[in-house]
Amino acid sequence: MSEVLILSQETIGRVLTMSDAIRGVEEAYCQKSTGAGCLFPLICHVFEPERADLDIKSGHLARSGIYGLKMVSWFGDNEKKGLPALFGTTLLFDDSTGVPVALLNAGAVTGMRTGAAGAVGAKYLARRDSRRMLMVGTGAQAPYQIAAVLLAMPGIDTVELCSPRSPSRAADRLDAIRQAVEELLNGGRAEPYIIAAAENLEEAVGRSDVIVTATPSHQPLIRREWVRPGTHFSCVGADMAGKQELDGAILGDARIFVDDLTQAVSVGECEMAIRQGHLGPEEIAGEIGDLIEGALPGRTDREEVTVFDSTGIALQDLVVSKVAVERAKERRLGVTAEL
Amino acid sequence: MSEVLILSQETIGRVLTMSDAIRGVEEAYCQKSTGAGCLFPLICHVFEPERADLDIKSGHLARSGIYGLKMVSWFGDNEKKGLPALFGTTLLFDDSTGVPVALLNAGAVTGMRTGAAGAVGAKYLARRDSRRMLMVGTGAQAPYQIAAVLLAMPGIDTVELCSPRSPSRAADRLDAIRQAVEELLNGGRAEPYIIAAAENLEEAVGRSDVIVTATPSHQPLIRREWVRPGTHFSCVGADMAGKQELDGAILGDARIFVDDLTQAVSVGECEMAIRQGHLGPEEIAGEIGDLIEGALPGRTDREEVTVFDSTGIALQDLVVSKVAVERAKERRLGVTAEL
Repeated sequence: MSEVLILSQETIGRVLTMSDAIRGVEEAYCQKSTGAGCLFPLICHVFEPERADLDIKSGHLARSGIYGLKMVSWFGDNEKKGLPALFGTTLLFDDSTGVPVALLNAGAVTGMRTGAAGAVGAKYLARRDSRRMLMVGTGAQAPYQIAAVLLAMPGIDTVELCSPRSPSRAADRLDAIRQAVEELLNGGRAEPYIIAAAENLEEAVGRSDVIVTATPSHQPLIRREWVRPGTHFSCVGADMAGKQELDGAILGDARIFVDDLTQAVSVGECEMAIRQGHLGPEEIAGEIGDLIEGALPGRTDREEVTVFDSTGIALQDLVVSKVAVERAKERRLGVTAEL
Repeated sequence: MSEVLILSQETIGRVLTMSDAIRGVEEAYCQKSTGAGCLFPLICHVFEPERADLDIKSGHLARSGIYGLKMVSWFGDNEKKGLPALFGTTLLFDDSTGVPVALLNAGAVTGMRTGAAGAVGAKYLARRDSRRMLMVGTGAQAPYQIAAVLLAMPGIDTVELCSPRSPSRAADRLDAIRQAVEELLNGGRAEPYIIAAAENLEEAVGRSDVIVTATPSHQPLIRREWVRPGTHFSCVGADMAGKQELDGAILGDARIFVDDLTQAVSVGECEMAIRQGHLGPEEIAGEIGDLIEGALPGRTDREEVTVFDSTGIALQDLVVSKVAVERAKERRLGVTAEL
């Protein structure tokens, strides 16, 4: 007999802040680096290729006192039924007793922790005097990525938004994304900033300091010759084999950090660059947790191009979910049920 | 956004009957046999050897329209803290949409489905004229095993209870077990029966038709020479490497069915018999689902000794959990929470 807290997407959206998520993701990366965080083997199952699949990501964070899992199911036909295609569900347990602590809708946490990941990469790898961010991709992740960078890097004052496949879409989505960013910032940023749409990706790349890519692309979108020295990329889109957003030659010349080495070379932005011969796995500088912990040096000079390849690890979800549980308990929100 | 049903151990105990569990376990075995049921890879993690570990068992049952997982955590120090050592938690999803359906305390389901497993083995392998059951082990599983056999085999009229390591314990536990069996039967059996304590295991083995073993033993408890022809064994205790309840020579001469071939040879009763050279893996007749489905013959004559080696598979938990969810919904029990 125990009591479990159930947190809906709506409740998590109310209690969890992007600053919480950024701190949580840094903590997850550090615990992985020091060995306090441990990933269990990934389970993937395909019900029907291209139509329905699932994965179960799980792990333990000794310094946070929790372990748990996230089940993510994707059912491509759901939209016809008026349902979301993705359902994510997280279960958290107390690592001193095994008691189940909470069941969470993983959607809100996934959005926040993925945004936070891109921003943590930029915070530790971009030039300190960076002012211009380019957001490549105008989907659900765009507001999370922008808000997280605006919080993690107060020096960024200009954000451009670009939709590489349909250039007019950035202007169409601009108002909605501005509003979503404001809501996510929730008063947490004092410095002024602007968000504008950019039609020409090449030109926007050429004037940016920090570029975040979050598209479902399977083809390189950004060419080596467009990139100016000192640019930082946080690549968030590639999370399965065959996905790619950058010209492999960009990675061949860059200082690269990843969230998880095994995952990055098999499903991340690094995967295609390695397959295409631009990059050897041994050329990856290391995992971002080792950089944050100070075990590895980050950017070595102002001219270097840096890349953070974020594939997403369960530890991010679990730490940020734990923060959501704490925030909800403080405000007595969520449903408590006896188990 | 979706709604999830949370079922506590107490609610499941109220709504789920042993007959439900027996039908559910047969269904799970059949779906495994026909390919409608599919197990995902098992995750095991040891926090600290002999002190704390967990496993995540998961799978899909196409004919039941569900998939899901059961997390079982064992924390050996919990008893000092006044907590149970084991916590089991089951999550069920709808396999047409991926929508989370229910979160259940797995404890009550595990007890019922494990009892049902032993009884299903006996129902399909024991002689039809069996009258005497011997229950070896007086722990938490004993009442579940006895009640399930009494329901699945109306011809059984005598049950003996034996505690192999401390013979007087059977008499001490007799009243509590009788009462627990009555509660589990819940009026579902019309035929009279008796339950008695047996001090001498050898003698009790020699007069029994159906023997269920559910102990934590790592040494053989029952010797080959005690067993009379035609006896059936359902072995439930062995669920990890090194556990053993029967003399390996019994398995060497018997017709053996298992719930899952891979699991039986690595962690089941078959494991030690194979290691000790009494049994070749190819001598196992097959999986019980193939027997129930009629794809393999069961007992071939009255004199044969038969064995069902039950190691426990996620499909049993998932099917029986689904039945518990249906029963709870019929009676409007459980807590519904938005996710």
